[in-house]
Amino acid sequence: MTRHIDLVADLGEGFGSWSMGDDSALLDVVSSANIACGFHAGDPRIMDRTVAGCVSRGVNIGAHPSFPDLVGFGRRTVEASAEEVRTDVIYQLGALQAFAHAHGGRVAHLAPHGRLGNLVAVRDDYARAVVDAISQVDPDLIVFAQDGELASQAASAGLPVAIVGIADRAYRSDGALVPRTEPGAVITDGAEIARRAIRIVEDGVVETVDGGTIPIVADTLLLHGDSTEAVNVSQTVRARLEDAGITITPLDADRLRS
Amino acid sequence: MTRHIDLVADLGEGFGSWSMGDDSALLDVVSSANIACGFHAGDPRIMDRTVAGCVSRGVNIGAHPSFPDLVGFGRRTVEASAEEVRTDVIYQLGALQAFAHAHGGRVAHLAPHGRLGNLVAVRDDYARAVVDAISQVDPDLIVFAQDGELASQAASAGLPVAIVGIADRAYRSDGALVPRTEPGAVITDGAEIARRAIRIVEDGVVETVDGGTIPIVADTLLLHGDSTEAVNVSQTVRARLEDAGITITPLDADRLRS
Amino acid sequence: MTRHIDLVADLGEGFGSWSMGDDSALLDVVSSANIACGFHAGDPRIMDRTVAGCVSRGVNIGAHPSFPDLVGFGRRTVEASAEEVRTDVIYQLGALQAFAHAHGGRVAHLAPHGRLGNLVAVRDDYARAVVDAISQVDPDLIVFAQDGELASQAASAGLPVAIVGIADRAYRSDGALVPRTEPGAVITDGAEIARRAIRIVEDGVVETVDGGTIPIVADTLLLHGDSTEAVNVSQTVRARLEDAGITITPLDADRLRS
Amino acid sequence: MTRHIDLVADLGEGFGSWSMGDDSALLDVVSSANIACGFHAGDPRIMDRTVAGCVSRGVNIGAHPSFPDLVGFGRRTVEASAEEVRTDVIYQLGALQAFAHAHGGRVAHLAPHGRLGNLVAVRDDYARAVVDAISQVDPDLIVFAQDGELASQAASAGLPVAIVGIADRAYRSDGALVPRTEPGAVITDGAEIARRAIRIVEDGVVETVDGGTIPIVADTLLLHGDSTEAVNVSQTVRARLEDAGITITPLDADRLRS
Repeated sequence: MTRHIDLVADLGEGFGSWSMGDDSALLDVVSSANIACGFHAGDPRIMDRTVAGCVSRGVNIGAHPSFPDLVGFGRRTVEASAEEVRTDVIYQLGALQAFAHAHGGRVAHLAPHGRLGNLVAVRDDYARAVVDAISQVDPDLIVFAQDGELASQAASAGLPVAIVGIADRAYRSDGALVPRTEPGAVITDGAEIARRAIRIVEDGVVETVDGGTIPIVADTLLLHGDSTEAVNVSQTVRARLEDAGITITPLDADRLRS
Repeated sequence: MTRHIDLVADLGEGFGSWSMGDDSALLDVVSSANIACGFHAGDPRIMDRTVAGCVSRGVNIGAHPSFPDLVGFGRRTVEASAEEVRTDVIYQLGALQAFAHAHGGRVAHLAPHGRLGNLVAVRDDYARAVVDAISQVDPDLIVFAQDGELASQAASAGLPVAIVGIADRAYRSDGALVPRTEPGAVITDGAEIARRAIRIVEDGVVETVDGGTIPIVADTLLLHGDSTEAVNVSQTVRARLEDAGITITPLDADRLRS
Repeated sequence: MTRHIDLVADLGEGFGSWSMGDDSALLDVVSSANIACGFHAGDPRIMDRTVAGCVSRGVNIGAHPSFPDLVGFGRRTVEASAEEVRTDVIYQLGALQAFAHAHGGRVAHLAPHGRLGNLVAVRDDYARAVVDAISQVDPDLIVFAQDGELASQAASAGLPVAIVGIADRAYRSDGALVPRTEPGAVITDGAEIARRAIRIVEDGVVETVDGGTIPIVADTLLLHGDSTEAVNVSQTVRARLEDAGITITPLDADRLRS
Repeated sequence: MTRHIDLVADLGEGFGSWSMGDDSALLDVVSSANIACGFHAGDPRIMDRTVAGCVSRGVNIGAHPSFPDLVGFGRRTVEASAEEVRTDVIYQLGALQAFAHAHGGRVAHLAPHGRLGNLVAVRDDYARAVVDAISQVDPDLIVFAQDGELASQAASAGLPVAIVGIADRAYRSDGALVPRTEPGAVITDGAEIARRAIRIVEDGVVETVDGGTIPIVADTLLLHGDSTEAVNVSQTVRARLEDAGITITPLDADRLRS
C-alpha cells in the first residue's frame, strides 16, 4: 500500500502584465510544478520567479512545453511535424533548465501541455518526438503522462515515467474519462476529490460513474489553481491526504524506471 | 607573437521559411559561431541544424542573445530593465544549451547581438545583467565583447573574456571605429581585410585612417556572411591567414581568464 | 461654461486567455473607449467583443496603438524609426476599423498607448508619424493627446484634437503632473477625483499641490479600470458628474477642429 | 470566347529583415496581388511598400490572410474555431485596407493563404467564417477561390467570386490536381505553362495527364514568384498570353457576381 503521493499543478501561466492563478498559494500545496516555458504562457521573468519559488520550497521543477500558440494558450492543435515538435520541446526544456541552474536546482520532469499533452497520448510520431527530445537532452527527466503512446514509448526508451492521476474527473467503467461535455464529468467539491484521491493512493482504485470501481495507477495527482476556488480545493485535498497519513513528496526518477 | 586566431561569424539567422546568409559555407570558414536564439532570428529547427553543423566541424558554439525584436532583427533598442535583460539572456542561452547537449556538444561562448551588443559596451546595468546571467548559468562560458563595460565587468567577475577584433572597419587614431556614415568606414576588399587581420594577429596593431597604427588586442576576429560577397571575403581572409602560417582555432576558456 | 464632458478609458486589454480589468462595467461608465489593437494587448476576438460593446452602448470607438511589445505591455520604448511608427499605427488602426465596420460603427478617435503615448508628446518625429498615419487613413479621426508635440502638430495639420485631462493626478503650479514617485501624486479617492473633475469641467481650473489653482483645458477625462477599485472609482466619478448636472457624452470631430 | 484574363501572385511575403521573392519584378507581370497581412508573412513596412507598388502600377490589391503562424509560414493547420478564423480574417483585412486607403487605393479582393486556403475549400465552417468576415467588412470584395466550399458559399451570399486557375499543375481526368508527390505534378517550363494558360483562357479547357482535355473555368491565373526562375516563368507566361492577343487586366467585381 502506497503511503505517499506526488501532487502536481500547472504554474507560471501568466504572461507579461497578465497573471493567471495564485502561484504563491499553489506552491505551498504541490510537490511538483509544471512550469510554462513561453510558448503558451510564461515569460523569462515569470519562469525565473516560479523556479525560484520551487527551489526555495523543495518543489520539483517540471517543463511544460506546448505548441507555439500564445493567443490560444496551447489549447489548439498546431499541425506541426514531429521534427517541429521535437525541436520546440528541446528549446522550451533548455530555457527552463537554465533558470533551474541559475537557482541551483534542476528540471526533474517534463509534462506536455494542453493539446500537445492530449496528442502525445494518441499520436505515436508526437510521442516519439517528445521521447527523443528528452533522451537527447536529459534521460534522467521523469516523463509525466497519462496512459497512452507517450507513457509506453518513454518506458520502452528507458525513461522514468510517472502516470498522472486525475481525482477531479469522473471515470467510466472502461477506464476512460467522462467527456467534459457530459454532466458530472468534473468534480468540484474538495472533500469529494480528496476522498477519491485517498482511494487512488491507498487502494489503487477509482470509483466510476456507474458506482463500481476500477483499478488505477497514479504516481502523481494533478491539481488545479487557475481560480481562487480551485486553489481552495487543492488546499483541501492536500490537507485531507495528510490527515489520512499520506505523505506529499516529489517523485524520484530511479524508482520510476520500469 | 600569436600564431593562431579564432574566427567568428553570426550564424543561424534565418527564421521559419526565410533564410539569411550561407551558413553552410561559413561553417567551413569560422572556428566559432554566434548562433541566433529565437529573439531576433533563429527558430528551433535552425538552431538544431546550426548546432549540428558546429559539432560535426569542431566549430565552437556560441549563444547570440538579443532584445526580443524579431521584426527589427534586434537592431532596435528595447528599453528593457536590467532584470529583463538578465532573464531574456538566461532564456535564450538555455534554449541553445539544450540543442548543444542534444548533439553531444556544449555552448562555449556568449556574444550579445545587435543593439544589445552595442549597449552592453556602454551601459553598466546591462553589462552587469549579462555577467549575472552567465555567472548563474555557466561561469565557464567565454564572454565575447569589444572593449567596454561588458568586457571589464566580465573580467572582474572572473569570467573568461575574448576581445572581438574587427578587421573590416576603419579605425581612428583614438581607437574608435570610423562611423558607418563616413566614407571608408567599411572595408570590403577581402585581400585588404586579410592584410589587416594578419597585422592584428602578428603585430597586435591596426592601421588607422590617418596612416598610423595603434595597438589592438583581439582574441577573435569577426567575419560576415550575410551575402554571397561577404562569404567570399570571409573565405579569402581565412585562406590568407592560413597562408601566413596562422592557425585558425577555437578559443579555450582557461587561457582567457584574466 | 461647459456642461458636458467625455469620459474615456483603456479597454480590451486582455490577450487570449488572459483578462485585464472589467470591460463590461467600464463600458457603462465611459462615453469613449481606447481599444487595444494587438501590439501591446488585445486580440481579434477581444477587439470584436469590445467594439460590439461600444456600438451597442453608443460609446465612441478609439484606436489605442502601441509599440510592438506584447510582453512589455507597450510600456517600454522600442527605438523604432518614425517610418516604423507611422506604419505600425496604420496597421493597428486599420485592423480596428474593420471590426468597427463589421459592427456598423466607425473608429472615431486615436490615442497612442503607453510609452508611445508619452513619446509623441515630446518627440516631433513620432508626433509627425502619428499625424501622417491619421491624415492618410482618416482625417476625420479625433486625436486624443495631452498638451505637447502631438496635440500641436495634429492641430496644425487640421486634424480634430481632444485634450485629455487627468483628474486623478496631482498638478504642480507650473502645470506639470507631480511625478508618480512623489507622495500624493496619484489621487485614489473617488469623491475627491469627482470634485476635481467637476472643477475642470465647470471652471476650467485644477487645484495644485500648493493649494492654488491653474487653468486647464480638457475635452475628455481619462478614467481607469484595471482593478475592481478603479472601476468603482470611475463609477463614482461618473455619478457625481451627472449629479452636478454635467452630461457625459462622446466628442464630435467638427467641434474640435481648431 | 474570353480575350482577357487576370494574373495574380502572392506578394509582400518577406518579414522584417528577411525577403522572399522579387516583388518588384512580379508587380510588372501581374494584374492582381495577394498581399501578406502579417500573420504568416508581411509586416507594416512591407505591406506599405507593396500596396504603394500596386497603386502606382494599377495592380489590384488583395488581402491574403492566414492562420497565425509566422514560423510555419501559414502552411500548418492551426485548429482554430470558426469564430477565430472570422476575427483573424477581419483583423488582417482591415490592416491591409488602411494601407490601401493611405495610398489612395482600395482592397479589391481576398484570397486565403496556404493551409487556410486549402481548408476553406473543404470545411464549411471555415468557408462560412471567411464569407461572414468579408460580408461584414466589405461585400464588394472579390473572393478568390478554387472550386469548393468557399466559392459556393461566397456565391450564395452574393459575393463576387473569381475562380483561380492553375496553369502550372497537371490535372487528372476527374478534374483533380495530380498530387505534388507524383511525377509530373508540377510544370516548370514557361512556354508549356503559357500554352496551357492560353487554352484555359481561349478554349476553357485544360489538358489532362492522360492526354485528354477537361473543361475548366478560370477568372484569374495564379503565378509564382518565390524564386528567380519562377519570376522568369511568370514573365514568359505574360508575354505569350499578350502575344496571343489576350489582355492582362484586373477583375471587376460587378461582372463576377453570380
